[in-house]
Amino acid sequence: MRIAHVAPLFESVPPRYYGGTERIITYLVDGLVELGHEVTLFASGDSKTTATLVPVRDQALRLDPYPLKSQIAAHLAMLDEVRRRADEFDIIHFHLSHFLHFPFFQDMPERTVTTPHGRLDYKDLPGAYRRWPHFPMISISHRQRQPLAEANWVGTVHHGLPLDLYKPIPRRQEPGYLAFLGRLSRDKRPDRAIEIARRTGMKLRIAAKVGEDDRAYFHGTVEPLIDGVSVEYLGEIGEDQKADFLGNAAALLFPIDWPEPFGLVVIEAMAFGTPVVAWNSGAMHEIIDEGVTGHVVDSIDGAIAAVGSATKFDRNLVRAAFEKRFSATRMARDYAAIYGQLLDTASPGRRIGAMAV
Amino acid sequence: MRIAHVAPLFESVPPRYYGGTERIITYLVDGLVELGHEVTLFASGDSKTTATLVPVRDQALRLDPYPLKSQIAAHLAMLDEVRRRADEFDIIHFHLSHFLHFPFFQDMPERTVTTPHGRLDYKDLPGAYRRWPHFPMISISHRQRQPLAEANWVGTVHHGLPLDLYKPIPRRQEPGYLAFLGRLSRDKRPDRAIEIARRTGMKLRIAAKVGEDDRAYFHGTVEPLIDGVSVEYLGEIGEDQKADFLGNAAALLFPIDWPEPFGLVVIEAMAFGTPVVAWNSGAMHEIIDEGVTGHVVDSIDGAIAAVGSATKFDRNLVRAAFEKRFSATRMARDYAAIYGQLLDTASPGRRIGAMAV
Repeated sequence: MRIAHVAPLFESVPPRYYGGTERIITYLVDGLVELGHEVTLFASGDSKTTATLVPVRDQALRLDPYPLKSQIAAHLAMLDEVRRRADEFDIIHFHLSHFLHFPFFQDMPERTVTTPHGRLDYKDLPGAYRRWPHFPMISISHRQRQPLAEANWVGTVHHGLPLDLYKPIPRRQEPGYLAFLGRLSRDKRPDRAIEIARRTGMKLRIAAKVGEDDRAYFHGTVEPLIDGVSVEYLGEIGEDQKADFLGNAAALLFPIDWPEPFGLVVIEAMAFGTPVVAWNSGAMHEIIDEGVTGHVVDSIDGAIAAVGSATKFDRNLVRAAFEKRFSATRMARDYAAIYGQLLDTASPGRRIGAMAV
Repeated sequence: MRIAHVAPLFESVPPRYYGGTERIITYLVDGLVELGHEVTLFASGDSKTTATLVPVRDQALRLDPYPLKSQIAAHLAMLDEVRRRADEFDIIHFHLSHFLHFPFFQDMPERTVTTPHGRLDYKDLPGAYRRWPHFPMISISHRQRQPLAEANWVGTVHHGLPLDLYKPIPRRQEPGYLAFLGRLSRDKRPDRAIEIARRTGMKLRIAAKVGEDDRAYFHGTVEPLIDGVSVEYLGEIGEDQKADFLGNAAALLFPIDWPEPFGLVVIEAMAFGTPVVAWNSGAMHEIIDEGVTGHVVDSIDGAIAAVGSATKFDRNLVRAAFEKRFSATRMARDYAAIYGQLLDTASPGRRIGAMAV
């Protein structure tokens, strides 16, 4: 198939630093190329890909030092370029969150598919979607669909990672610690993680960024609980420190309090064989195999029992479950299967006809 | 003429508090209604207008307490509604800054006109505009066009205010003070205003908001210079305090250091008969009649001499110049004339034909 991917322009693909969406696009595009598809990526010019890159802006918006940038104008220009070249592709896969591409492709929604990578409980989304109700959508979890249940959902594809990206650490340090990785925001509930660790008597290591919006919460609620001994704060860690941090952890704590549509760090932990104790929120029930790769809990008491259980899991089985369910190849195959179904629906017999030529 | 106006959804029309764009839209829409046109306003549902309101969102985005809002989805839904009803209007006038409407109307640019209300020196604007080069644009000053000089500019219409909105104060307090009104940002250069006042020996009164982004600048640079006697800081003032503040000032200082495309406060001062001393930046040369309504200067020394001169101006002549050049009625007539030209160009003889029926 001739497949176009259209990435947001906020970060390059892959992102230079943080950017879950752009990382997933990288793995998916590379996976589709490996499967033999002809893939074109519309993205910022500082992107690097095994597909054919169409650089639609000199560099990604966020790290561009130019003081005045228009994200709307940048994305409009990109979408116009995609529209002009639409005939070159069998299917055009959009990774934009808020429907900016719909007006451009309203005469050909069946040639497109959209993966929104974020939460969907924005007030304005259902009203806007109802105006373009035919656009096929793919969710990154079943839970993600809930606030936009009436959309034309054609599949769910869980994220995946390349199997060689992260590997279990053969000889881990013992005894381990509990790990918390992510932004130190109210939504992520680091306070719960600290209480769980304190009451299990295990050390907690926190590797996380404090964003501008989260400073007041951090200084008021989290910082007073960091003693440097039983609760240690490492600041933000780079990609190269992640293996050590997640791979040596006894378990990852993910006690979130928001409708997380996927939770990439959860499968990253699994890739290292590290089990996860997560709060019953968002997509956690879909991502975690209860009793195999982790536990999903509803309370601090539940979490404490879960830590006791999860730290005794066979880490080889955690890794095996990861390989089976969350590989980039599986993700690419899942998406390719949906593209095929969409093409069959759009023009039945089309692919057979093409074979006859 | 049947005229549609399409307002941004960030603030209601008129705005509940601050919002220059939405105030101008109010005056323009009311002015066109008074001229006898059939006017429809697409705006948030908390707007109030003499035109026919099409409420496309229950309330304006900025003050909506709902935590998650999508400005893109909100504006897309509005633009889809405008597009569906396009045949009801002779001309559709957009007040959006960054071209979000272009894809919707690319088959009928000649039926639209766009007034961008902000600065245009954003990196992404020229590249995006080149993809829709036929959309007619109206600038709010000649200077505003400069970063997008190649656009299809069909006219410049300076802003205007209703003549009865602000009136000179008959018996002003003497001796007067110098006034500074606006955000306390680096761009507005309150530090220059303070130095000018200090060196002229006149009192400076500052009425201004300190935005989130400007806090560090305010505390570091401006606050140490406020002594409460020769430099007085009043905080943000409401619409009801503006008459007293501007009307009693000997002159308004506007020593900006950015390409201000218009500068609404400058004509507000003139409405009270208050002359303006402004820096040679942005559209100031177009707005100020040198030696009549104020002076445009290049240096602190120049500003000091200008204050000496301007405070001796005949304030009746300042008001007279305001009435001649910056009334809302003049603004509405100017826009209506451009609409007429656009319609004649789009379909010559059309209006004559309509008269014959």
